[in-house]
Amino acid sequence: KVKFNLYLSVSIITAGDLASASYIFILGQLGHRTTYDSEIQYRIEADTFGELRVPADKYYGAQTVRSTMNFKIGGPSERMPIQVIKAFGILKRAAAEVNKDYGLDPRLADAIIQAADEVAAGKLDDHFPLVVWQTGSGTQSNMNVNEVISNRAIEILGGKLGSKDPVHPNDHVNKSQSSNDTFPTAMHIAAAKEVHEVLLPGLQHLHDALQAKAVEFKDIIKIGRTHTQDAVPLSLGQEFSGYVQQVKYSMERVRSAMPRVYELAAGGTAVGTGLNTRIGFAEKVAATVASLTGLPFVTAPNKFEALAAHDALVELSGALNTVAVSMMKIANDIRFLGSGPRSGLGELCLPENEPGSSIMPGKVNPTQCEAMTMVAAQVMGNNVAVTIGGSNGHFELNVFKPMMIKNVLNSARLLGDASVSFTDNCVVGIEANIDRINKLMNESLMLVTALNPHIGYDKAAKIAKTAHKEGGNLKETAIKLGYLTAEEFDAWVKPHEMLGPK
Amino acid sequence: KVKFNLYLSVSIITAGDLASASYIFILGQLGHRTTYDSEIQYRIEADTFGELRVPADKYYGAQTVRSTMNFKIGGPSERMPIQVIKAFGILKRAAAEVNKDYGLDPRLADAIIQAADEVAAGKLDDHFPLVVWQTGSGTQSNMNVNEVISNRAIEILGGKLGSKDPVHPNDHVNKSQSSNDTFPTAMHIAAAKEVHEVLLPGLQHLHDALQAKAVEFKDIIKIGRTHTQDAVPLSLGQEFSGYVQQVKYSMERVRSAMPRVYELAAGGTAVGTGLNTRIGFAEKVAATVASLTGLPFVTAPNKFEALAAHDALVELSGALNTVAVSMMKIANDIRFLGSGPRSGLGELCLPENEPGSSIMPGKVNPTQCEAMTMVAAQVMGNNVAVTIGGSNGHFELNVFKPMMIKNVLNSARLLGDASVSFTDNCVVGIEANIDRINKLMNESLMLVTALNPHIGYDKAAKIAKTAHKEGGNLKETAIKLGYLTAEEFDAWVKPHEMLGPK
Amino acid sequence: KVKFNLYLSVSIITAGDLASASYIFILGQLGHRTTYDSEIQYRIEADTFGELRVPADKYYGAQTVRSTMNFKIGGPSERMPIQVIKAFGILKRAAAEVNKDYGLDPRLADAIIQAADEVAAGKLDDHFPLVVWQTGSGTQSNMNVNEVISNRAIEILGGKLGSKDPVHPNDHVNKSQSSNDTFPTAMHIAAAKEVHEVLLPGLQHLHDALQAKAVEFKDIIKIGRTHTQDAVPLSLGQEFSGYVQQVKYSMERVRSAMPRVYELAAGGTAVGTGLNTRIGFAEKVAATVASLTGLPFVTAPNKFEALAAHDALVELSGALNTVAVSMMKIANDIRFLGSGPRSGLGELCLPENEPGSSIMPGKVNPTQCEAMTMVAAQVMGNNVAVTIGGSNGHFELNVFKPMMIKNVLNSARLLGDASVSFTDNCVVGIEANIDRINKLMNESLMLVTALNPHIGYDKAAKIAKTAHKEGGNLKETAIKLGYLTAEEFDAWVKPHEMLGPK
Amino acid sequence: KVKFNLYLSVSIITAGDLASASYIFILGQLGHRTTYDSEIQYRIEADTFGELRVPADKYYGAQTVRSTMNFKIGGPSERMPIQVIKAFGILKRAAAEVNKDYGLDPRLADAIIQAADEVAAGKLDDHFPLVVWQTGSGTQSNMNVNEVISNRAIEILGGKLGSKDPVHPNDHVNKSQSSNDTFPTAMHIAAAKEVHEVLLPGLQHLHDALQAKAVEFKDIIKIGRTHTQDAVPLSLGQEFSGYVQQVKYSMERVRSAMPRVYELAAGGTAVGTGLNTRIGFAEKVAATVASLTGLPFVTAPNKFEALAAHDALVELSGALNTVAVSMMKIANDIRFLGSGPRSGLGELCLPENEPGSSIMPGKVNPTQCEAMTMVAAQVMGNNVAVTIGGSNGHFELNVFKPMMIKNVLNSARLLGDASVSFTDNCVVGIEANIDRINKLMNESLMLVTALNPHIGYDKAAKIAKTAHKEGGNLKETAIKLGYLTAEEFDAWVKPHEMLGPK
Repeated sequence: KVKFNLYLSVSIITAGDLASASYIFILGQLGHRTTYDSEIQYRIEADTFGELRVPADKYYGAQTVRSTMNFKIGGPSERMPIQVIKAFGILKRAAAEVNKDYGLDPRLADAIIQAADEVAAGKLDDHFPLVVWQTGSGTQSNMNVNEVISNRAIEILGGKLGSKDPVHPNDHVNKSQSSNDTFPTAMHIAAAKEVHEVLLPGLQHLHDALQAKAVEFKDIIKIGRTHTQDAVPLSLGQEFSGYVQQVKYSMERVRSAMPRVYELAAGGTAVGTGLNTRIGFAEKVAATVASLTGLPFVTAPNKFEALAAHDALVELSGALNTVAVSMMKIANDIRFLGSGPRSGLGELCLPENEPGSSIMPGKVNPTQCEAMTMVAAQVMGNNVAVTIGGSNGHFELNVFKPMMIKNVLNSARLLGDASVSFTDNCVVGIEANIDRINKLMNESLMLVTALNPHIGYDKAAKIAKTAHKEGGNLKETAIKLGYLTAEEFDAWVKPHEMLGPK
Repeated sequence: KVKFNLYLSVSIITAGDLASASYIFILGQLGHRTTYDSEIQYRIEADTFGELRVPADKYYGAQTVRSTMNFKIGGPSERMPIQVIKAFGILKRAAAEVNKDYGLDPRLADAIIQAADEVAAGKLDDHFPLVVWQTGSGTQSNMNVNEVISNRAIEILGGKLGSKDPVHPNDHVNKSQSSNDTFPTAMHIAAAKEVHEVLLPGLQHLHDALQAKAVEFKDIIKIGRTHTQDAVPLSLGQEFSGYVQQVKYSMERVRSAMPRVYELAAGGTAVGTGLNTRIGFAEKVAATVASLTGLPFVTAPNKFEALAAHDALVELSGALNTVAVSMMKIANDIRFLGSGPRSGLGELCLPENEPGSSIMPGKVNPTQCEAMTMVAAQVMGNNVAVTIGGSNGHFELNVFKPMMIKNVLNSARLLGDASVSFTDNCVVGIEANIDRINKLMNESLMLVTALNPHIGYDKAAKIAKTAHKEGGNLKETAIKLGYLTAEEFDAWVKPHEMLGPK
Repeated sequence: KVKFNLYLSVSIITAGDLASASYIFILGQLGHRTTYDSEIQYRIEADTFGELRVPADKYYGAQTVRSTMNFKIGGPSERMPIQVIKAFGILKRAAAEVNKDYGLDPRLADAIIQAADEVAAGKLDDHFPLVVWQTGSGTQSNMNVNEVISNRAIEILGGKLGSKDPVHPNDHVNKSQSSNDTFPTAMHIAAAKEVHEVLLPGLQHLHDALQAKAVEFKDIIKIGRTHTQDAVPLSLGQEFSGYVQQVKYSMERVRSAMPRVYELAAGGTAVGTGLNTRIGFAEKVAATVASLTGLPFVTAPNKFEALAAHDALVELSGALNTVAVSMMKIANDIRFLGSGPRSGLGELCLPENEPGSSIMPGKVNPTQCEAMTMVAAQVMGNNVAVTIGGSNGHFELNVFKPMMIKNVLNSARLLGDASVSFTDNCVVGIEANIDRINKLMNESLMLVTALNPHIGYDKAAKIAKTAHKEGGNLKETAIKLGYLTAEEFDAWVKPHEMLGPK
Repeated sequence: KVKFNLYLSVSIITAGDLASASYIFILGQLGHRTTYDSEIQYRIEADTFGELRVPADKYYGAQTVRSTMNFKIGGPSERMPIQVIKAFGILKRAAAEVNKDYGLDPRLADAIIQAADEVAAGKLDDHFPLVVWQTGSGTQSNMNVNEVISNRAIEILGGKLGSKDPVHPNDHVNKSQSSNDTFPTAMHIAAAKEVHEVLLPGLQHLHDALQAKAVEFKDIIKIGRTHTQDAVPLSLGQEFSGYVQQVKYSMERVRSAMPRVYELAAGGTAVGTGLNTRIGFAEKVAATVASLTGLPFVTAPNKFEALAAHDALVELSGALNTVAVSMMKIANDIRFLGSGPRSGLGELCLPENEPGSSIMPGKVNPTQCEAMTMVAAQVMGNNVAVTIGGSNGHFELNVFKPMMIKNVLNSARLLGDASVSFTDNCVVGIEANIDRINKLMNESLMLVTALNPHIGYDKAAKIAKTAHKEGGNLKETAIKLGYLTAEEFDAWVKPHEMLGPK
């Protein structure tokens, strides 16, 4: 009963009429009296298991409703990612075009194409209520798409929703297809689009901002730190150039995983043999998808591998995991370099984006770094989920498909979004705290190495040890010990000459 | 521009007016002209960074709106879990009660209590738009709660939303508290409630159904399998008793992690010292939360640990990970034992929940097993994310809090829900395919071991080797070889006497 | 050919005559001419697959040699952990005692007991050459143990090595046992002993050292840090008390996982039914093992679960993972608090254990923290390997046993050893850099909160903002602004009164 | 005391005189009386911390001995992988060559080159006793190498061990180098060599064997399985072609990660600036290493990234993780397809490599599959350890270096070795059980789909449903129902026409 309320309130908020209806069905199935929301109109549809009430204003049909009854796992926040649904829209359009070439009635094909375009454009998003935690082949989401496109196409052609006439979800929309090859095709389309539309632009945005900072900071010489301890100097620009390189390679890593993601399973049908398709169907579908998306999709050279394994997504997830590792390093460095304002390292001033303490000025919490590092940890966890799912396929079909693509898309989206947020709300506003950097530089004992050629190792070491013991700086100590003059010190100790090989 | 459309469409579908407004703000901030939805009414609120428009029908305030502007990461599906918000409702009510004891104006306290109860009851869920990927201390969600409760309390008392009068979000709702101790307190409350309300009931439900099957199947003797290969017999009930034991221990494991989850950080305030609280506040808040929830919460004995580390959640996540391991084993076994109908092991008949193939009867896809194993993989991934977050705290505060609790709650919910779904839609309907079980049993070569005491090892081995070579069964082969009679075979080879020690 | 050289050189270095012999066998099997080390004496043994040469000075027999031929994976560093072998020694002794009760010839039993004791004591360690990457049930290591004990017992009784007379490896040493129940029994014994002998003492050692530091540092007041940024003060002793609590709970977590590790599978034989054992055997073996080890082992209540799943080890690994999380936090904090000597936080002085830079005094690399955090990362990875292995058992037997126990033992050992090393070489020598702590404390802007009750929020804020802008300290700035006197400042700003609730 | 015995016995077995000496030192340091093995000769060496006894027959020196005293973690099995030591040999030779170009005394340089070659050739392996769990920069292993090469070069030149004259470990062997750039250089050399010498050849070997099977099995038509359930047919060759594709892509994935592994950090020295090197040094060293190894090493374009991050190894580990996922799938399929002999799927006959049950013929445990899947699980765990280590670098140096390379090398080695073992001991000997395959094929109900065009959907469905209910096969049932003749059935139901598109 408590659960009843929970589902009900959630559904009203986030998913409209549909979910409340379907969840009421569910509760009914659990032994309670079946109740229907009296404000919702239903139509009756049937599948081979019997009749079901389908909300009258929804395009989906009986198989979709039945899935909502059988898989009450996680609630609305666990829905199949909308990117997968949109990718299905692209695929179904492409398949209809190719089927038209192979003889599908052009009137039906054109209606399917129009409906599929609407799915791809996100116009029908609230007709896809199913959760990730369904059948592992994604069959029910494929049928959800088939039902929605069929009914929408029927509507376009003036027919009656649920009649399957003149556009049948299986015979026409799913023609020459199986869940087993369409779902992995949609996975690859969705992943490739997310990479190109969200992840890579986000990384490029971050790269450019870091690169600008590397140039801006190129003449600021600062102390280096190894083992978290003081070390010999480098420029702040050099330090940032390391971050630039990490982001540059992040993009290369993702790109190097894409060739195998561009391979589409479509045409393999149920077990990879292509039973019930026509010769050439696979190649034409891939070419059409490539044309529709502007991405270099091709048909997978081996459909058995493409259905039974999703190594390409594991590989992509591994690239995203490596990106996360880079992001963790960069964000960690920036928050530590920006720590303070008084008792931290304080070399960077981070932009203040929200009220810190009401009383204490200067307490700028590195909240963008925190969001980024949380994202990084999530991506690393997602990668393990993808790995486990990928490793557990059996025979002709891997049945961890929905879970795998959910995690890959989540990682790509979070990394892309977080890169933009981190860039716009943090990186571009970073300023060097030059006074602090110079102070730490001048206080450093590391610079004593520059005196070796002039006064010898022993005297140089004596200076450093005395300064460390007494808390003095090198110059004062050196002069006090009578080893050199202030002028000599300035002439010999030049940090800017310590920034490269000779 | 593409992104603009994406956000806009998503927000309209799933989050109502609020999100569309806030996301338009975001886009505005990105350099576009700030646009407001002309159908939404706004009020102006200010924080120390300036004025902001807040949707007129929302209880949250400026700090919440600002967070939506600064953290455009992941979209609505990445919202702070509602369980955390509800747990905050419980905590804020408890704090108000204790603050009343310590002198807070009873009129204000009572209004806060009423508003907090509404939050805890889920009546104000759509006033919490923030995503997980915010500041790592969860400060912005704490402020979101403070703002909502304050404005709702103001409303109750007849004041003006946004006026902070007579109920101030910081001075009154957050009194004696800091984000740094309240967020971890809400984490523990939410985790403990999810465990008790969703996970443990789900596991118990599964346990009971498996136990019933173990009893039902206790007299069905079947071939055992080790290394996936034929082995000596056991009863199907014994096989299921192993699953029962796994689920029983799953519950024990979760329970054994709870003592440290019951410890609450409240009273530690900013760094664990309890600055700005009163002696006794921590203990009283914990006792009140315990009373409100019926769970044995206590104040954490060391607040420094409670803020700076979340080992208790890592520990709980480890228990959930172990539960996932058990679930993977059980669901894998059941789908393999139910594989077929002709070319698999076929010892179990799994219930058919949705249309399989339209033409081929008996193709029952083990979809509930697939959902369960996908959940298991997800939980294992979540555990790694929690582990990494938990390990990266620094000094007085761990700043991976929202990510950690999101994953723990997700794991608990998915395992609990999937256990119920798996039980109701699969386990209770499992039937033993007795003919098949008997056939495999009779064909097995393993039973030859029973002949050793009667005809000696060498003759027994000869029977088995001949049967294996010729494809015959043991009885026929033994008789054919002239080593014994049919009667002797039946008298000596009794699988039911091979089920235990002597 | 290159590989030939590789194996050969490795074997000579690290494993003595045994490995070189066995690896040469391997190469022979691969189609090269079989070569034997002319300096090694061999005896001929046979199994059902044919004759094999066994080094004359080794107690193991044909099945062991055959395993070295079939599993050339990883080389000597990948050997079955010696703790598993020793645990087998304990188990085989216990089984022999119980078998004697049930009628095994006392002369044979006593010889087996003596030989098993030698295995348990580590006297025969170089007779166990097999690697982890063998059959997943550990059968070959069980046979290795059976062969060694049998041959050593034969030797004790004056017989001929390899004759299987009068002590047969299967009929006598393995009596009433199967690999399927003995290997998991040895896993649990080995894990429990490693926990009690290495891990818990190591953690206790660390706990006590941290506790002593918490007491030593209890009166040193320092600035707190949240979000890595300056925050309100706490004592250094309070900060260390958080670490103490983490280690205390680490021990509790490990202990709370042990009840299920104390359950032994022995008596389940091949599939869990206990076929070929006697009633009471399981209980008596567990009691004997308990007596021999001083640990509360009991027989597993459900042997099907005990063979087919190793959830107990996944659970223990989860506890070790949580310990690793705690260690990462503690070691990270200590290295950052000890960073410097000039440009870091510098609040702690860490002991210097090895030469740092030859020229720069004070560069103390926190090498013990580095070893500890590397160990923590390894344990987190090991936990994933254990999780995956645990989840992939099928039917009556999990066949990831050797891999699982290798990782659990590795984690326990590394954490235990690293705790001792970290304690002795770092923690006990940590000193507070009181001058630095006080300096940071006095420079802090956080203390301004103490002035609120005396001069009001606005003036306090003005002081802080001015000090932040001008770089001055609070006291000087407050006086300069004319808001209070030096005496008033000292009277009102007392960090030691900010360490707890009032 | 127990521990004393443990260390002592282990060291005697596996590492010869060296370890026993060093471990005795350790125990002495723990408060026991320092004891020396009376049979070992020592020389006295000093570092800046004082005098130490070094075994007289060892080339290493004081810093190595001190590390063995300070890092007693894990014992001999946790030694720095020998591949890293050999890679250091290559690097030190290359550096000496380049240093000679830049003016290093040719007599010294040549002696260093000779000594370094011996290290690279594995002739001095027992002079490297240090464990992985040391300083996170690998400094101590770099010094171990410097000390060994220096002393061996001194010996070559007729000097006295430990005198540092005429070849000084720092001034000459480590000239123009720092641990911070040499260790990551050795990491990359070792990883690239292991990939090329062990992993890729192993995968190619497996690929070729699977490819041969795919050809051999191309005409064997069998039932397909999706969701582990019966599905439409494919050929056994097609099924194996999927595995071939996975292994082919495994090699591509590894290769696509290599470009960034070929980048060497040498020349970056302490913080990446290249302080104390000469212009051109970095490029010349990389070119020399490339020449020595035959692999396309280049100098890293950004040395700051190359020291502070090890993303290239995380990326490589991600590729290895994906390979592991492929291996898990392939090995799982093969063991299930080979399950039986009577009660499993039984479509494949796996080679029998070791005695199964003594009484039951045909019980072939798929032990090679088990070893392979255990390896896969380990590699997945290793990947998490590498990920965590890679993400936790700070500022100018990542200090998880030894742990990271240990795991990468372990993964590469295990996968390579296991691929060879799996190929030679399993794949090449796999036979198709054609009788069984045909039987399952003929019994299958899936073939009914072929009748649709001839007798219509309804009658076809009736045949299938009747056959399923009565347990009959399709042909018999169809004839019995009077829908067609035996000849028609044979003419219409042709599985070999269901293997591709039309």
